[in-house]
Amino acid sequence: MLFPLAIDPLVSQLSSYFSRLPLLTAATEVDAPIVLTGVLLSLVVIYVASKLGGELSKRLDLPPVLGELIAGVVVGVSALHLLIFPEGSLQASDSVIMNILQRIDHLSPASLTGIFQSQSEAISILAELGVIVLLFEIGLESDLQQLKAVGAQAVTVACVGVAAPFVAGTGGLMWLFHVPAIPAIFAGAALTATSIGITAKVLSELGQLKSTEGQIIVGAAVIDDVLGILVLAVVASLAKTGTIDIVNVVYLIISATVFLIGSILLGSFFNQSFVAIVQKLQTRGNIVIPALAFAFFMAFLANAIHLEAILGAFAAGLVLDETDQRKELDEQVKPIADLLVPIFFVTVAAKADLTVFNPMVPENIPGLTIAAFLVAVAIVGKVITGWVVFGQPGINRLAIGIGMIPRGEVGLVFAGIGLASGALDKPLAAAMIIMVILTTFLAPPFLRFAFGTAESE
Amino acid sequence: MLFPLAIDPLVSQLSSYFSRLPLLTAATEVDAPIVLTGVLLSLVVIYVASKLGGELSKRLDLPPVLGELIAGVVVGVSALHLLIFPEGSLQASDSVIMNILQRIDHLSPASLTGIFQSQSEAISILAELGVIVLLFEIGLESDLQQLKAVGAQAVTVACVGVAAPFVAGTGGLMWLFHVPAIPAIFAGAALTATSIGITAKVLSELGQLKSTEGQIIVGAAVIDDVLGILVLAVVASLAKTGTIDIVNVVYLIISATVFLIGSILLGSFFNQSFVAIVQKLQTRGNIVIPALAFAFFMAFLANAIHLEAILGAFAAGLVLDETDQRKELDEQVKPIADLLVPIFFVTVAAKADLTVFNPMVPENIPGLTIAAFLVAVAIVGKVITGWVVFGQPGINRLAIGIGMIPRGEVGLVFAGIGLASGALDKPLAAAMIIMVILTTFLAPPFLRFAFGTAESE
Repeated sequence: MLFPLAIDPLVSQLSSYFSRLPLLTAATEVDAPIVLTGVLLSLVVIYVASKLGGELSKRLDLPPVLGELIAGVVVGVSALHLLIFPEGSLQASDSVIMNILQRIDHLSPASLTGIFQSQSEAISILAELGVIVLLFEIGLESDLQQLKAVGAQAVTVACVGVAAPFVAGTGGLMWLFHVPAIPAIFAGAALTATSIGITAKVLSELGQLKSTEGQIIVGAAVIDDVLGILVLAVVASLAKTGTIDIVNVVYLIISATVFLIGSILLGSFFNQSFVAIVQKLQTRGNIVIPALAFAFFMAFLANAIHLEAILGAFAAGLVLDETDQRKELDEQVKPIADLLVPIFFVTVAAKADLTVFNPMVPENIPGLTIAAFLVAVAIVGKVITGWVVFGQPGINRLAIGIGMIPRGEVGLVFAGIGLASGALDKPLAAAMIIMVILTTFLAPPFLRFAFGTAESE
Repeated sequence: MLFPLAIDPLVSQLSSYFSRLPLLTAATEVDAPIVLTGVLLSLVVIYVASKLGGELSKRLDLPPVLGELIAGVVVGVSALHLLIFPEGSLQASDSVIMNILQRIDHLSPASLTGIFQSQSEAISILAELGVIVLLFEIGLESDLQQLKAVGAQAVTVACVGVAAPFVAGTGGLMWLFHVPAIPAIFAGAALTATSIGITAKVLSELGQLKSTEGQIIVGAAVIDDVLGILVLAVVASLAKTGTIDIVNVVYLIISATVFLIGSILLGSFFNQSFVAIVQKLQTRGNIVIPALAFAFFMAFLANAIHLEAILGAFAAGLVLDETDQRKELDEQVKPIADLLVPIFFVTVAAKADLTVFNPMVPENIPGLTIAAFLVAVAIVGKVITGWVVFGQPGINRLAIGIGMIPRGEVGLVFAGIGLASGALDKPLAAAMIIMVILTTFLAPPFLRFAFGTAESE
């Protein structure tokens, strides 16, 4: 639907809208229904794949999320090319869905490129909303009191889990592989930040999210994310100027601390207002819409001060967990999470190109060697964190360490910035990507094993 | 997250990803977090506006959706400019949200334009998913048996409701305003198709969706939509070639008929499969995800054969309404509809520029005169349809007629194609847009009045 600004410039406005603008690579208004066709087909692919993968995984007594990830790999760039994104050398003509649209609508190559771009952006935004809703739900399921109780352990785990892989990774690359200091620091830094999404989902599926281990992992992963952003800021300014931008680092430390502690403190006040507002509302969605508006606002706020959006959503969940409406809210957030979260997992896996693992291609060998080292450091450097937990006799230390293993977006951002600044070379960047993929895929079965062992003891 | 195709072209791929491509007006990967910031802030604006508007409206004993529409006008292009779209002469610098992002991130004008474009596309796709979920929900709430019972009446109402405004509009423009034949036919055709979304939402809020009147309106509006697409195909080929493309018209008639009747017939078969599949699923979202995948697939199918996506979603809802899982599905679709539907209503209204109504601007006068005529024809031409309903003594004929009043997207598509082909002049196109806006805003209070009168009798 469109309404122009005023009658006078109407013709030129509408005409320009309905004719194709040559400079726009994004889809124009004419192509909008076709973008929607593509989005709908992509969503059907995502839901069918995630359900098939999740159910198969469940039948094999594995966490459903692992099956969703593998299903994502199958429909993605590694195999079927049903769900691909305009990254690297991938184009509209590589996408099976785009070829279907092409057959239906006989599009020009230029408008196909625009539609591919727009469709991919829409799916990516839906995936981002998915991980935001996931962390909101995890916040709702987490217990603020319990999280406070394990706070000191979580901070210890997070700090060791950042320091150990960073030192071992950077040192090992310099002394074993004779990598120069700056790229070694980059690769070491990429090893620091845990990706909370996958671990938390597996924990939730295993019924371990509310266990002491689960709460330490979630708490540490949240702190870890903040530390990862700090390390990124330091390393990026180091690579750019050769010095560290102290002002920016101090700003990030202060803003992250103020944000997390501030939102939890303000929470006890907001709790009451939320309950009061919700009780006055009489129209449909009286609980879930104010709650999501709050979660999205907190995510916006976190994003605006250059933290991760998911931190804000998690904080919002923690705050609303303390209200009386919690149970009803839980019930209503579930279908929304069911709608959006699979988009995140399938998309993450669909973008992961497993062909970089093929050892038959000679170009892959140097990357694979360094990758093997980085994966080892990534796993060992996080697994040891379980043994720094104090004052918790009988705790499952292996599970805590394994829960911290998966790396995600932050690691890839390091690779990207390193390459753009010229600090990284080809094999090293590829190794970082392999490290992210492997830690992501290995953590779910490992974690299940760690908790399974504990249960049978 | 990104994973390139292979190690070899890695550097060039990643580098190109993290540097800004000058040809791309869509946001690049670097700007992706900022696009997300914009989307989150837009969603917060949409939810706060829709809740405020809906609740105020409810307090004044009006349908909540009317309040949501008015709230959309307030935050949109007519007033606050919080939620605007890159249409007509509107640019990133006109958007309050974009100015906020600009202050936060100090963006270049080029990347701000890209972010504005990408954010607007994402919100538009969410709005489209909103109307798809709305029609799916309406399908779920509609009763297929009752719809079949009123089928003959619905077809009659639809045919009269298409023919009457078309003949009166085209004839009136030619004889009263001396408009040439082709533009008069265009404007007449724009008067034909009812926008089902708003009417169905109001019916649902009044608890009248399942009444005989409600089912006749919904059935007629669905048929109406198909007829509107047929008229569009005829008129567009008339404007383009001076002749009518019989093959295309026959194709559309056949495909629409086969699609609607076929999906309902296949429905009784699919019902059983759906129940069988859902009963075997053990992971989260076992009902809602297969249901939505089916709805999205049907919407895709309808879109692919050049019908409206909402027709497919409505058919999917009708089919699944007949299953045993219906009640549980209803419960789970509700929060998803609460999440997505307000995006549709607020966006529709935010795009409506009410400044074209200002009679103080001399340029608006010719458009307003023709608009007054078109609005009169649009209202009278649909209201009379209530009196062609046969075999239903004591039925609320006024309510049926009023229920058919709102016009929507299809009317605007007529305006757009007419302008692009040069068949329409400025005042006539503006008049068509005013007609769409007014019928959309007048229908909810009228409909409430019509049913209110009936209740007190």
